[in-house]
Order: sequence, then structure tokens, then C-alpha cells
Amino acid sequence: MSKKYDLLTLGELLLRLSPQANERMSRTKIFEQNIGGAEFNVAAGAAQLGLKTGLVGKIPAHAIGQLARNEVHFQNVSDEYLSHDNSADARLGVYYYETGAAPRKPGIVYDRKHSSMTSLSIDDFPEEMYSSTRCFHTCGITLALNEQVRKAAIEMMKRFKKAGALISFDVNFRGNLWSGAKAKACIEEILPIVDIFFCSDSTARLTFLKEGTPEEVMKSFADEYPISVVAATQRIVHSPKRHSFGSVIYDAKKQTFVKEEMYKDIEVVDRIGSGDAYISGALYGLLTSENDTRKALQYGNAVSALKNTVPGDLPSMTLCEVEEMIKTHQEGDNGLEMKR
Amino acid sequence: MSKKYDLLTLGELLLRLSPQANERMSRTKIFEQNIGGAEFNVAAGAAQLGLKTGLVGKIPAHAIGQLARNEVHFQNVSDEYLSHDNSADARLGVYYYETGAAPRKPGIVYDRKHSSMTSLSIDDFPEEMYSSTRCFHTCGITLALNEQVRKAAIEMMKRFKKAGALISFDVNFRGNLWSGAKAKACIEEILPIVDIFFCSDSTARLTFLKEGTPEEVMKSFADEYPISVVAATQRIVHSPKRHSFGSVIYDAKKQTFVKEEMYKDIEVVDRIGSGDAYISGALYGLLTSENDTRKALQYGNAVSALKNTVPGDLPSMTLCEVEEMIKTHQEGDNGLEMKR
Amino acid sequence: MSKKYDLLTLGELLLRLSPQANERMSRTKIFEQNIGGAEFNVAAGAAQLGLKTGLVGKIPAHAIGQLARNEVHFQNVSDEYLSHDNSADARLGVYYYETGAAPRKPGIVYDRKHSSMTSLSIDDFPEEMYSSTRCFHTCGITLALNEQVRKAAIEMMKRFKKAGALISFDVNFRGNLWSGAKAKACIEEILPIVDIFFCSDSTARLTFLKEGTPEEVMKSFADEYPISVVAATQRIVHSPKRHSFGSVIYDAKKQTFVKEEMYKDIEVVDRIGSGDAYISGALYGLLTSENDTRKALQYGNAVSALKNTVPGDLPSMTLCEVEEMIKTHQEGDNGLEMKR
Amino acid sequence: MSKKYDLLTLGELLLRLSPQANERMSRTKIFEQNIGGAEFNVAAGAAQLGLKTGLVGKIPAHAIGQLARNEVHFQNVSDEYLSHDNSADARLGVYYYETGAAPRKPGIVYDRKHSSMTSLSIDDFPEEMYSSTRCFHTCGITLALNEQVRKAAIEMMKRFKKAGALISFDVNFRGNLWSGAKAKACIEEILPIVDIFFCSDSTARLTFLKEGTPEEVMKSFADEYPISVVAATQRIVHSPKRHSFGSVIYDAKKQTFVKEEMYKDIEVVDRIGSGDAYISGALYGLLTSENDTRKALQYGNAVSALKNTVPGDLPSMTLCEVEEMIKTHQEGDNGLEMKR
Amino acid sequence: MSKKYDLLTLGELLLRLSPQANERMSRTKIFEQNIGGAEFNVAAGAAQLGLKTGLVGKIPAHAIGQLARNEVHFQNVSDEYLSHDNSADARLGVYYYETGAAPRKPGIVYDRKHSSMTSLSIDDFPEEMYSSTRCFHTCGITLALNEQVRKAAIEMMKRFKKAGALISFDVNFRGNLWSGAKAKACIEEILPIVDIFFCSDSTARLTFLKEGTPEEVMKSFADEYPISVVAATQRIVHSPKRHSFGSVIYDAKKQTFVKEEMYKDIEVVDRIGSGDAYISGALYGLLTSENDTRKALQYGNAVSALKNTVPGDLPSMTLCEVEEMIKTHQEGDNGLEMKR
Amino acid sequence: MSKKYDLLTLGELLLRLSPQANERMSRTKIFEQNIGGAEFNVAAGAAQLGLKTGLVGKIPAHAIGQLARNEVHFQNVSDEYLSHDNSADARLGVYYYETGAAPRKPGIVYDRKHSSMTSLSIDDFPEEMYSSTRCFHTCGITLALNEQVRKAAIEMMKRFKKAGALISFDVNFRGNLWSGAKAKACIEEILPIVDIFFCSDSTARLTFLKEGTPEEVMKSFADEYPISVVAATQRIVHSPKRHSFGSVIYDAKKQTFVKEEMYKDIEVVDRIGSGDAYISGALYGLLTSENDTRKALQYGNAVSALKNTVPGDLPSMTLCEVEEMIKTHQEGDNGLEMKR
Repeated sequence: MSKKYDLLTLGELLLRLSPQANERMSRTKIFEQNIGGAEFNVAAGAAQLGLKTGLVGKIPAHAIGQLARNEVHFQNVSDEYLSHDNSADARLGVYYYETGAAPRKPGIVYDRKHSSMTSLSIDDFPEEMYSSTRCFHTCGITLALNEQVRKAAIEMMKRFKKAGALISFDVNFRGNLWSGAKAKACIEEILPIVDIFFCSDSTARLTFLKEGTPEEVMKSFADEYPISVVAATQRIVHSPKRHSFGSVIYDAKKQTFVKEEMYKDIEVVDRIGSGDAYISGALYGLLTSENDTRKALQYGNAVSALKNTVPGDLPSMTLCEVEEMIKTHQEGDNGLEMKR
Repeated sequence: MSKKYDLLTLGELLLRLSPQANERMSRTKIFEQNIGGAEFNVAAGAAQLGLKTGLVGKIPAHAIGQLARNEVHFQNVSDEYLSHDNSADARLGVYYYETGAAPRKPGIVYDRKHSSMTSLSIDDFPEEMYSSTRCFHTCGITLALNEQVRKAAIEMMKRFKKAGALISFDVNFRGNLWSGAKAKACIEEILPIVDIFFCSDSTARLTFLKEGTPEEVMKSFADEYPISVVAATQRIVHSPKRHSFGSVIYDAKKQTFVKEEMYKDIEVVDRIGSGDAYISGALYGLLTSENDTRKALQYGNAVSALKNTVPGDLPSMTLCEVEEMIKTHQEGDNGLEMKR
Repeated sequence: MSKKYDLLTLGELLLRLSPQANERMSRTKIFEQNIGGAEFNVAAGAAQLGLKTGLVGKIPAHAIGQLARNEVHFQNVSDEYLSHDNSADARLGVYYYETGAAPRKPGIVYDRKHSSMTSLSIDDFPEEMYSSTRCFHTCGITLALNEQVRKAAIEMMKRFKKAGALISFDVNFRGNLWSGAKAKACIEEILPIVDIFFCSDSTARLTFLKEGTPEEVMKSFADEYPISVVAATQRIVHSPKRHSFGSVIYDAKKQTFVKEEMYKDIEVVDRIGSGDAYISGALYGLLTSENDTRKALQYGNAVSALKNTVPGDLPSMTLCEVEEMIKTHQEGDNGLEMKR
Repeated sequence: MSKKYDLLTLGELLLRLSPQANERMSRTKIFEQNIGGAEFNVAAGAAQLGLKTGLVGKIPAHAIGQLARNEVHFQNVSDEYLSHDNSADARLGVYYYETGAAPRKPGIVYDRKHSSMTSLSIDDFPEEMYSSTRCFHTCGITLALNEQVRKAAIEMMKRFKKAGALISFDVNFRGNLWSGAKAKACIEEILPIVDIFFCSDSTARLTFLKEGTPEEVMKSFADEYPISVVAATQRIVHSPKRHSFGSVIYDAKKQTFVKEEMYKDIEVVDRIGSGDAYISGALYGLLTSENDTRKALQYGNAVSALKNTVPGDLPSMTLCEVEEMIKTHQEGDNGLEMKR
Repeated sequence: MSKKYDLLTLGELLLRLSPQANERMSRTKIFEQNIGGAEFNVAAGAAQLGLKTGLVGKIPAHAIGQLARNEVHFQNVSDEYLSHDNSADARLGVYYYETGAAPRKPGIVYDRKHSSMTSLSIDDFPEEMYSSTRCFHTCGITLALNEQVRKAAIEMMKRFKKAGALISFDVNFRGNLWSGAKAKACIEEILPIVDIFFCSDSTARLTFLKEGTPEEVMKSFADEYPISVVAATQRIVHSPKRHSFGSVIYDAKKQTFVKEEMYKDIEVVDRIGSGDAYISGALYGLLTSENDTRKALQYGNAVSALKNTVPGDLPSMTLCEVEEMIKTHQEGDNGLEMKR
Repeated sequence: MSKKYDLLTLGELLLRLSPQANERMSRTKIFEQNIGGAEFNVAAGAAQLGLKTGLVGKIPAHAIGQLARNEVHFQNVSDEYLSHDNSADARLGVYYYETGAAPRKPGIVYDRKHSSMTSLSIDDFPEEMYSSTRCFHTCGITLALNEQVRKAAIEMMKRFKKAGALISFDVNFRGNLWSGAKAKACIEEILPIVDIFFCSDSTARLTFLKEGTPEEVMKSFADEYPISVVAATQRIVHSPKRHSFGSVIYDAKKQTFVKEEMYKDIEVVDRIGSGDAYISGALYGLLTSENDTRKALQYGNAVSALKNTVPGDLPSMTLCEVEEMIKTHQEGDNGLEMKR
């Protein structure tokens, strides 16, 4: 099945502004910029692993929009479906982020309302887009932006589904964008067309009001809806600078669960985007195999662990490096001695 | 006449984000932050010269609002009347700025809509504010923000006037905020209560449709309205890195004009805020004398020239340094050899 | 009891120069500057929590003095009683500091002699200063500077006491400034007027030659002198980048001790000023309650832990953030997961 | 005539390492990296103006090769024909560059031998490459690399010509790579298939031994060979920080010369790549018109002037900005006042 | 025995280029430069401890060669025998290095072929060099560079031996430069003249095919060859940011082994050069005593631990600081509290 | 006449702290450090040109003293006679410097009193020092430090003279260190033993009360005292970023004056140390010839012009580069086009 893209993702690009090192945002003189966004992070990670990916969205036509577009180019993610906002009010959403150090946790201030993305319309994109990709991914943040984007996103999912694409969806619940109840209602509307579903155990319980063992919770989604794959990540925050990370994936067809040892004691440089990185690895695993959930698990976990060790929202890796890390992890060696 | 403040200014604080050195904003990895805003720049400059000043306005309660408030503190400008916006949507307006190099001119992208300032209300401030200052200053940018701010600002000007403050106003026309016609109508509404009026010759012609010699233009304002002082600056942009700057001031009571040699071949580091710096110097001259327009001219020109030589929106100077520069300028010596 | 200030502190401002990251001072090309000083750190921390504070001291009138004064402004600490030294020899004391990494400990070089502070005289300050504050704080470093400052400081303490202020004193023993015996003699001279006394257990033993359990040691000060509150901090240095911190406070009136779990495994970014931060939190607790030593303990410990996580001599915090941290600490949760 | 690419260029990518600001390379602690290369610069400039471009070449497969490839992505230049060198000896050529300040001229140290590019073979590229583009460009540097690359480049030019592409060639003589005589012999071999020829007047005289007026020199190339367009640039180096730049273009079919006022007193930030930028503008002009040499001249001159004002080897611009600059230049206004 | 130098080392100088902090080399904009090289690192470390040292080698005459020479000067290592390469192809070898963060290991890309060092000849140096030093040191990297350097190095070792110098040799096996078999053959050729031999246990087994307990392995070298001292280091890589380090030394004359507690939980800033730092400390110990292997052990371990805590290839220390660290280590105290 | 050193200079090392780029010292967060000092600058410049030089002085034994010593090493200037101050009060003098931009002049704050240098004694140095050099240089700053240093310096000059060294002296008058009258009296005491005398025309008039044409003024020194060479520099400060520089030298034996065209429109990066750089070039010219004043003039002027183009107190150059610049200057070409 050869299409122009392996993966198209729909989502907003944000300009993240962060102080350097451990400085606080309330007194910094310098901000480092990182362009990110949940679904862009997924597309970029998958592109680094070798998939042909593209981003669907809308950004300003001005220089700061160009800054974002340049990062899309840098990541080798296609901007064919990244539309321009030429209006006088065009803006790129911004968020400010500072890292934490125990016992101080990371800080975040959002300034993303009224962005160009919020004026996105289904009419901004050509009909041929829907048949150009093997897989389409978006997440709950996009659905939560506003009514207009929500409608456009749901309509897109339907058109992609109809054109034969796999539909991937990450709940990615953000309490500062919408309520759990609203999220639940909206997401339950789309679950009938979702093939690959990412939802953490805690979100499943708090937002979808699920009960039972973690496995029962995951399975229950696949029992209710025609979902093929359900994945749930687990992050243990020992301190802002030390995490452990792992996941469980459920294969609905085979009715089996896969899991592996967590990546323990990750030396966290920047945790932002590590959940998205997981998805990029998992989708890479699924799309380069016949729905092999073990491959999805291994790539997802390794890519997420790796993302935590680099600054910014985006991973920075090669396929070769990830595969070496997976091998080392399976061998139970920390593999950290240099070869030279 | 001893009051708590010599000068209160009303205006918005913005977060300026600029690439370092000559980098372009469409590809920079680093942004330097500078907090500025036309009327804050005036208050800060005047405070550096020794006046007791304060800023009237509204900023977010979150960490980025605190970043702005910290800069107000740094400048020794009182934040007694700088109110907090605790709403979830609170935002600090942003603008992006890059310096130019001939033949490339400076670039600017505004993202200031929907800021906390735009929800400012007269009710945010106590009645005793109006009698606490000798002089109140604001400018056309504030009037152009939105209808709510415009109404509040005009009402404030009236209350300050009534409480005995001198009213200073800078037209500071910005075509990206409102039309010339709208500006003219609004400003003509307040001119009857303005004491000190700043308006460049070109704005007087383009916006107020004035004609005649520059002196006739300036005088015409004072003839029509009970204005005491009319000041007009002149900037010659030889290149982004080389300007000349001067001004003319009209004393309506004495019906006299004062001017002096321009500051020629200023080595411009950052031109932003140099017009506001002029006002801070001119107001310092007027408020520390009996309306001495020559003093206003000399301090205004020197402070503006000086501002151009430092990065950011704000001047950085001491009274002593400005006075030495004025003396040197009058002596016709460039005064640039170090003493050590 | 409403006075102009909640807290005035007397102390020297120093210019700290530090290499970036882990570079050594013997080969760095760049120094980061931080203005600090034990008592200024206390005033700044208390101001961040919401108290009205001011610094009493003396700094040069030149540009480097202005650098220090600007930091005082930035911290929203009043410089009303920070006098100018206009002499040709005016200097701001300097110290050089580099962070450590196990097994290399932090390094420090002092160059603080002959500073403007050492010429401080009681005559530099107006009589009304003494009645302007609810509390006055200084520490052993100030007493150790030289004979002139020592005399001025002791006289000030007496005048503040007489004018009704609470007297707070931190032993803060520095072996490079004076001997233990000299410190003991001098401090015992002022203990009769001290209300709030900060002294670590090891200093109590080494300098004041106390014996017994830690509690007996603390109580012995209050038994001998009319002290209301005795506080002792405890820091465990696991490595330069990992500390644990806690304290004990004795309420002499109630004859009770308060303590709580230490803040364990603090990810230390910069330890300088964390002891002063403790005092700022403790004084905040005492001055915003009816001498509630538990509140003092909780704020002191939290503020000190927080200070360790930010660069420079000064804390950077909001009251809201500190209170959230106290709550989390009491709940026994590390509270480090972001909310978004 | 719609093809996949408007322009393919063949050339080497180099890693440039430069000290910051005015530091010298013999004592800097920091190097800024810029990826560049004459023909890549052309492709990147043309892509910024809107052409679909790609780079033909060979780079290492390792992380530093990836650094170069990422810059190609960033510039939105296709890397479809940028082959990987997986050998153990793969290397990216390096050059070190420092800016000058009168009377010190810029400094440059080359370390480009033995690079992956020098092992480039015609077999690294598929046959369909030749029919995929409207225009193919390379320059004398590529021909001078070594015998293997020279042969491959000449064979490519022939295949592209045969497949219907316009052949563009820039002499770009570098005395440190080959002698004038060798260059002359080699280039005269390819001139029979060149359509667009870039050669400065001084190179024409020194290398090709031409004589006569500048116009006669240019015309003589077109008289001897079936060249359509001959372009010659002129740069006046007033100082390392101030240049003037212009050009003349000859249209062989119409037998006419076009020229315009030079861009005078360019505030030079970084001169590297300004000649390549000229070519990108000129090719844009020719390829978006029916061989309109005036358009080529205007875009070439403006793009080159603009390039000088930004750091690095590559221009940073938008089509809109270049067109505004051309308009201003024709109006004789310096156009440097900001609009806001 | 007073000679001009205590220690001459023969080796290549490399330019290391590293991203800042945790950035990856495939996307960094900035490289920090560090000049290093195994044997230079040894000479520099020994010079910091007080020995008179010099470097024997060959570097380019151009500005980047000067950058390297300046670092030699900075380290107070004599460049009397560091010859200039004036050829057009002169180059300084380069390597790129990025730090790791668990589970990502450090990354390294070498670009050191064809360097000026590889053209080093015995004729570049005067005969008096051989009698100018008490000790001569080189390592396996130098022998592995190419046939020409290998021959020159072996010849030098012989001449130094003949002139009465102690010969020190570090196996320092690098699989990317030569095979284990080739290394074994070459090194066994020189072992008959080696006095001080550094070889890790794992290298002894893998390269020299030794068997038995670690002590047996070490002793076997001294049994076969007239070696006086055999030293083997041990590094445990808990994570890229946390190591433990120790060593064992065998005194062949006394037939005794010395060891001590490892330095545990070193907070690693930069591990590069820590093995060389060990040698500098060990040679310092041996050369300032009568072959006291315990002194060698203590200084070697302390200097290596210390090196890990500073950025770059080179240690940064004073003798006094190292001795204080040794004392603390022996006392079993972590000694990390500051004294002030 | 072969001695260990060509040139020894006596002088103080200072730590200069400067904001980056155009920032002001009263608000900078970052200071760049440069170690300098008039006579060290001379020794370093001469060493860069190839002379064997050393610095005589006294610096602290602590880490900041080591920072200064490392710079001496870096410059390849011998620290054989740079003595250690181990006292608790040891300090390195500091000065703060910010660059200017018209019409703002450079700013400077000195904090150099009580430095280790001020305790320098003739007894700190061995007798063999006096016969180890061909030339000894110091300047008026050293004489002005305090009585103790003045006496030591004068005694040293006498001993060096007696041991056969040429005595070079630069008036380098600093009004902030002593009065003109005091300087005149002191310097007239040493002129009888000075061979090479540097004194600007304005200093000759203001301090030595000379009258007449510039040539008469210069000649008058040689008429009164047995001086061989009198050199006077001339700097025209067009703006802080643009200077012109030249000089005149008088050869007393030949009774001739040499001069040449000034270096015009120098693009000044950092003017500090350019006068000292002149002396290093002039002494190089004199010491590598038979007192050839034209050579002294050419090297002095070129080195000074070059120094202005690099940051810091010290020049950064190679002999080859200086000679190329001299040649270009004589040819009247600006020579600024790159060769590549």
C-alpha cells in the first residue's frame, strides 16, 4: 500500500519560550525558542525514524509563522497541508515553560488562545489530502481548542477513515482546555472510527470513569469500540530530573497484552513531548510491521526515554540509535560505555 | 507643590522578543526579552533622571506578568497602580522585533490583542490616585487599544486634570492600531484638557491635516486649544545603524520656539523607545523648572540620543551623564575621549 | 501595628562573580553576576512573600554601585536607607564563587575588604528610620566587618529596640572574618536585646561552647537571655548537587519545640543564600502571625529548599508557590507532576 | 513546462566554524556553525523565493552529515539526490572563517580535502534525475575539487542538457583549489553547453585573458559560445563592514545590456555567500519570466545586498521583502523607516 | 637528577567540537572548542601539579594550529618541540563529541585522518631533545595513527631510553584506529624498553589475551618484560552523569600491589580525558618520589576523579586542592561542606 | 647579544570586567573577563611578534590570581618573575569597562587599590633577573600605584640599566592615579636613565609643560636627557566605533623624525590597550633592528591599528599578518578583499 505519506497529523504549532538551564521565567533575560505541538511532535519523531509524514494545520504568514514553518522543514515533515493565515490578527500560540528541580516542579504558562489554528476550516484543504496517507493521527488537545476546530477535526477523521487511512487518536487530556465530561462526550463520538487509541490508565479512570485492573480498563475500550490497538503509558516522576517510563499495549484482535521492563532512572533533560515521542515510536512500529504491538511497544518506550534526554519538545534521534538502545535494554545492560 | 508622584503614566506593558545581534526572527534559536511600552518607557526614563514616577495599567498575575512587574520594580517605577489580572485568559501582549542593516530595515510583528490591558477599567483604581501626582502622561497607542481602554483613559485624563495634574499627551500614531481619521477625532476630543502636547510634523500633516511651515503647524495646535507646550521631534534615518535626532519646542505662553543642533551620526544600537526617551527628558526638564522649554529641549534631545545607543526599549542613564552630554553638545566637541 | 516597613535589614551588598555551569573560576572567560548579601537576601525573600522591606547599608555612587542598587529595586526592597558613597575610593565588595561536583567541592574567593560598607556610620541615617519598622534584622557578618561597622550596628540595634522593633539576629559565623572567641564576646553583648535568634547547632557548640542535646543547646540561649524564638537549621550535604534540609524552632514563651520532616534530596542548583532564605521564610511566618513558630518553621524550610533550586544568591518565588509546596510536603507526596 | 524541480544544483556542503562577533579564530572558545556551499547557497536562496529546488551531492551518514542534511531540510531544499557516504572515512569538509574590521581583513582556513563529496560518482544518482528539473546549476569550485568529481560533474551537465534542462554555470574562481590556466581549459570545455554564465569582470580578464571594455568582455563569451545570458557582478569593499554591490547582465539574443544603480553602503554583517545569493536571485528572475534579464538583475542585486546583512552563508528572506526592497531601490528612497 | 623537563609526551593535538549542555551534535548551532589529545592531557595535568612538561608533536602553522598552540601555552606546557606544518594541506584533526544522559550514551565522530601529525618525522626534532627530560610518555593512539608516526614514535622511545629517560606507555586501545592483533604485535615490540605501563584489565584480556585474576594479569606483564610499574584503572559507568573510579598499581621490584577505596558516585560533567588525568597524577606521584606506587595511586585516582567534574579534555586543578581531596578521601568524609 | 629575554616589563595585572556587546555595566547580567595591564599588554604583543618576553609583578596565589597567571601563560609571556601573594588579603585589582556608541562615550570604573601588586618589593626578585634581558619597560601607571611600588620600580630600572638593558618608559599619564605635577617630578627623576621614551604631545604639554611645535616638544626631551628614541602617538576619536591612528618618532642620534600616513577609519571593536600595542610594535621594531625608528614606526602603527579591531586588552596577531598589513598600508590600497 504505497501512498504519498505514511502519516499525516493534525495539530497546532506553538512557540515555546523557556529560560536557559535552571533560571525562572519570572526573571530571565533570555528565552530559548522551541517550536512544538503534540501532533507535530508525533510527525517529527516518526520522520526521524524514516516515515514520510506531514502536518495538517494553520499558521500565520508573518515572520513568526515562518519560524514555525522552518522548524517543520527542519524536521523533514511536509508542510503541504500547513495553511497560511494572512489576516492582520494572525498569531502563533505561545507557551512559557521552565524546568523544575526537586522540590520545585516545572512551571508552565499558556498563551495560546486566538491563534491562527483556531480559525482552521475544512475548506483550507484539498480533497486529495484524504487519500494521500496510510495513517492519520490527532489528539484531544486539537478537539479541545474550540468548536470550529473540533468540528473540522472530526469531519477530517471521517474523511480520512473513508479514504482508507488508519485513524490514530491520543486522549492527551488537558484540564486547562476543557472539562473531563466534555472530553468524554466528544471522544466517545469519535471512538467508533478510531483504530489506534492512546490513553493513560489515570485518564481512563478520571475522564472515562473506567474501573478494574489496568488491563481490564484497556480491554474495555476495545470491547466497546472497534479499536485494534490500545496503548497506555506509565511515567514515574522520582524528581524533575529523574523519571522512569514504560507502557502496556493491548492487541484487540489477538486479545493479548505486551509489556516490558520500564526504562528506569532516566536522566531527564526535558520531559516535554516525551508522551508524543512514545506515540511516534509506537506508530512507527505498527506502520512498519503487520500491526506488531511488541514492536510498537519497544520503539515507543525507547523513543520516549530518549526524548527525555534532549532539550525541546522534539526528539532528536536516528533509527539506528533507537534500535541499538532497544537491543541494550533487552539485554539488561545499561550499555552506557562509549565505543571508540 | 509636593505630591507622592511627579509623574504617573498610563499604558500597556509588552514583552518584546528579539533575536541576538543581527539574526532574523524567522530563524533565531534565542530571543532576548525586553519589557517595554511607550508610557512605561517615559516613566522609567524620568525615574532614571530622578523623578518619582509610577505606571498605571493592568498585567497578568502569572509568572510572565511577574516578569513585567519585576522590570517595573527594576526601573524604580512604582507599581502601586499596576493592577493584577487573575483571569484564566490573562496575557501579556508580545511583540517580536529584529534590528535592520542597510538596505534591510528593522522588522516587527505584533501579537498584542486580547491582552490583560484591554480589560482595564476605571474601577481598577482608587480615587486617591488622581490627586497623587503633579503630571499625568499617556499616548495615542493607549487610546487605540480598544473602546474600553479608550473610555477609561479619557475619563482618567479628566479626573487627573480636575485634581490639578498637568496633562501630557503624545500622539504616537500607529497605523496598525487605528486609522488617521479615527485618531484625529479621538484626540481632538481630549486636546481641550492637554497641557503638554507631543506631535511630530509628519503626523500633524498626515493625521491632523495641518499645513504651513513646521512652526505654523505647531503653533496652530496651541492656537486652537489651551496647550502650553507643543514639541515635535525629527529623526533622520541615514541607515538602521546611523541616525540623526533633534526637536523643536513651542512655548505657547511666550509664543517662542526653541531648537538646537541635531545630535548627528548617532551610532544606533536600538532605536525602539527613543521617542519615549525624548518625552521622559522633556518632561523632566519641564517638571524640574518653571516650564523651561529650553531645558526640556536639551534633556529631551540628549536622552533620546543616548537611548539609541543602548539595547532594549528603555534608556539606561544617570542624570549626571546626561548633563555632561548636554554640556559637550553645546560646546560643539564630540567629547568622546575617555577620562582616566 | 502598621508601620512603613515590616522588616529592615542591615547588611553589605556584594557583587558575586561566577563561571557558567561547571566551569572553574581559574579559567573562565565569562562571569555571571549576582548581587547578594546575607541580610539583603533576607529582605528580598521576605519581600517576595509580601512583606514591606528595606535595606540599610552603603554602596558606591558609581555604575557598579548602581548595578547593586538596581538589584535592590528589582527585588522591590526599599533603598530609602541605602546610602551613597561618593568618595573616589568607593568600592563594592566582590566575591568569586564556583559550584562543585562530587568529589570537588564549591570554591570561593573573597575580595570584600575596604568596601564602601566599611565606612558606614550611624550618622548616615535619619532618626525616623528607627520607628519605621516592625522588625530589624542583621547578622554576624555585619558585626565582623570592622570596628566601625560593628559599633554602628550595635547602636542601631539598640535604637530600633527602643523604638519598639523586634530584633532578629543570625549568628552566621564566618571564620574568615573573625575568630570564634571574638564572635562570642561580641554577640553575647547584644543577646540581651535580641528577640529572634538564629544559630545552628554546630555553631552553638563550636563558637558558644554549648553542650548537651540539640534541644538543650537551643533552650540554653533562651534561658540565659530574654529571647523569644531560637531557630537552628540543619543541612546534610550528600553531594554538591544533592542536599537535605530541615530545622528546629524553640518557642521560649511556650517552652515548646517544633520540627518537621526534612526536605530530602533537594536537586541543588545553587546553595548560596539558602540559609538567608530560611530566615526570610521564618520571619515571614512570625511577622504574619502571633509569633507562630510552626508557621515560621514551615515557611522557613520551604523557602530554603526552594532557594537551592534556583541560581544566584536570591530566592525567586511567589507566596502561592511556597504555600503549595508546604501543603505537598505535609501530604508526603513529592507533588512533582505538572498540572496542565 | 512543469517538472518536479525548477532548479537542481550540484555542489559540496561544508561546515563553517566561526568565532562570535569580532573574536579571532586563533583564540575563540566558541564556534558558531553554519552549513553552506556555493551551489547549496544558490538552491536555498531560490527556494526562499519560491522555486522548487534540490541539491545533488554526497555527505557522510554520521551525525555531522546529519547536521548538514538537517540544514538542507531547514532550507526546504530537497535532499532526494543527496547521497550518503557510509564509509569509515566519511567526512564533511570544514572551513573556519572570521569577520574583519578595518584595517584587518576577514580570515579563512580551509580543511575540505578528503571529504565525502570527493568520492561522488555519477553512479550514485538515478537516471530519472536528469529529466526532473528545468534548470541545473553548478560552479567552478565543484570542477576544481578533484578529477573524479570534475568528470562526474561534466557528465551530469551533459545529461541534464540532453534531458532539456537549462545549464547555469558560475566560474567562481578559487586560486587555492586550482590554477587559472587549468580552470580556463576545463571551463572552456563546458561552455558549449552553458546557457547562463556568471563571470566577474576581473575573473574574465585574469583567468580567461579577456580584454576590452567590461561590456566587450561579457559579449565576447556569448559571441564564442551559444550562451544566452552572461552576468557579471561588481563588489566594492570600502571596509569589511561596508560594501557596495551591483551587476551587469547581457542578453545574447537581444544583444542588450541591463544595469542599475549599485546598492551603496551596505552594512555588511557577513559577506560569505553574497555572490551565490546573487545567482539565486538572478536564476529566480530568469526562471519565473521569459528570460527577462532586467528581472534577473533586480532580484540578483537585491538578494545579494540582503544576504550581506545576515549572518551565515545563506540568505534569510521572503519574496515579498525582496520585492519591496527592489521597489524602494528603484524609487531612490532608502526606505529604512519602519512602518508600524 | 635535574633536567630541563620532568616529562615530555608525544602525541597528537585534536580540536574537539561539542554542543553546549545536553544538545545533540546533529542539530546544534554552537560548538564549544576544547583542544585535547591523550598525551597532551597527561602533560597538562602534570604541569598543573607542578612538573616541567613539554609536548612533542606537529601542528599546522595556520590560525587553527595557533588555536591549539595557544592552549599548549595556556597549560604552561612547553611547545619547544611542537613543530609547525607549513604545507598547504596542513590540518588539525577534529573530533565531535556530545555528552550522554541515561539511557542515551555519549556520542563521538572522529575526523582525524590526514592531519599534520601524520607527517611527523624524527627529523623534525633536534638530538638534544632526548637528553632534556627525566621521563617520556606516549600511548597506543600515537602508535596507531599510521606507519610513519609509528616508526618515528618507536625510534623516539629508543633514543629517550638511551638518553636515560624513564619510558611511560599507556595502551589506550582504540578499536577504531587499529585491530587488537596489530596493537598487540606493535606494543610487544616496545615493552622491552617500557618502565611504566598503563593497561586496563579488560584491554589486557581482550587485546593481550591475558588470563587469570586481575593481579595475575598485571604481574604477568612485569614477569615477561623489565617493567617497573604496572597500573590498571577501573571505571564503573552507573550512568553518563554518575561514575565510580579506582585503580590498582603493581610495583614489580617490591612485588606488591597497592589499591584504595574507589571514588564513588562522581558527578560527571565530562568524562573525556579522565584516563589521561589518571596518568598525569600517577606520573606526578612516581616522579616526585622514589617510585612510590602508593603516592602514584592516590594522586592518579584523585586527579582522575577531579577531571570528571570539569568540562573539556583537560583537568583544571591545583596541587593543593588535589592533596586536600586525597586527605578527605582517606578520612572517609565526603568533605563537601564549604569553609568560609 | 643573546639573553634569556628580549624584553621584561614591570606592571600590574588587572581583571577587566565588561558587559557584552553594547550593554551597560549598571544593568548587565554577564561580564566578560579580560586580563590586562599596560606593561603586560606590551609584553604580550611583543611575544606575539616573536620576542622572548616576561612579566615582572605580583599577583594573588588564589584562584583569581591563577586566572591572571593562566592568561600570562596563554600569551607565552614568562611568569618566572611574577611573584605569588599568599596573604589572606591578596587581591587582584579590578576594573569595569563598557564600550561607547556616539554620542555616548566609553565608561570605566576602577577598583584597583590594595591589590597584591601594591605590596611588591625589590626583594621579591632574584639578582640574576637584571642581567637576563636586553630591554626593560615600564610605565607611569606603575610609578603612580603607591610609594612602595614607585621606589621598587625606580630601583629596578637602575639595576636593569646597570646590567646593560635598554630602558623603555611610557608616560601613560592617568589623572585618576596622581597629579600632573607629581608625575612630572617623579618621571624627571628617571629620565636620565631612559633610552626609549613614549609620550603623547598632549601629555608633554599638559604634564611636562612643554611648548612649541610637536617636533620641538619631542626633541626637547632628547635635548635635556640622554634619550635615544622619543615616540608620540596620535589618536583621532571620530566616534567610539571609528578612530584614526598614527605616530611620530624622533631618533636623537640621527636627529631625524619619521612619520607615515595615519591608519584612517579604523573600525574600533575595543580601544583598550591600543596604546600599549603600539609600544609592543615599536619595541619589536627597535629590538629586531639596529634601532631602526622607521621599522619601529611601521610596526607600532600597524599593531595598534590591529589591536583596535579585536576585543579585550590584548592584541591577537601574527608577525606575518602585521607585515602584510604594513605592506598594504604603504601601497595605499585598503587590501580588504579576501584571497581564496
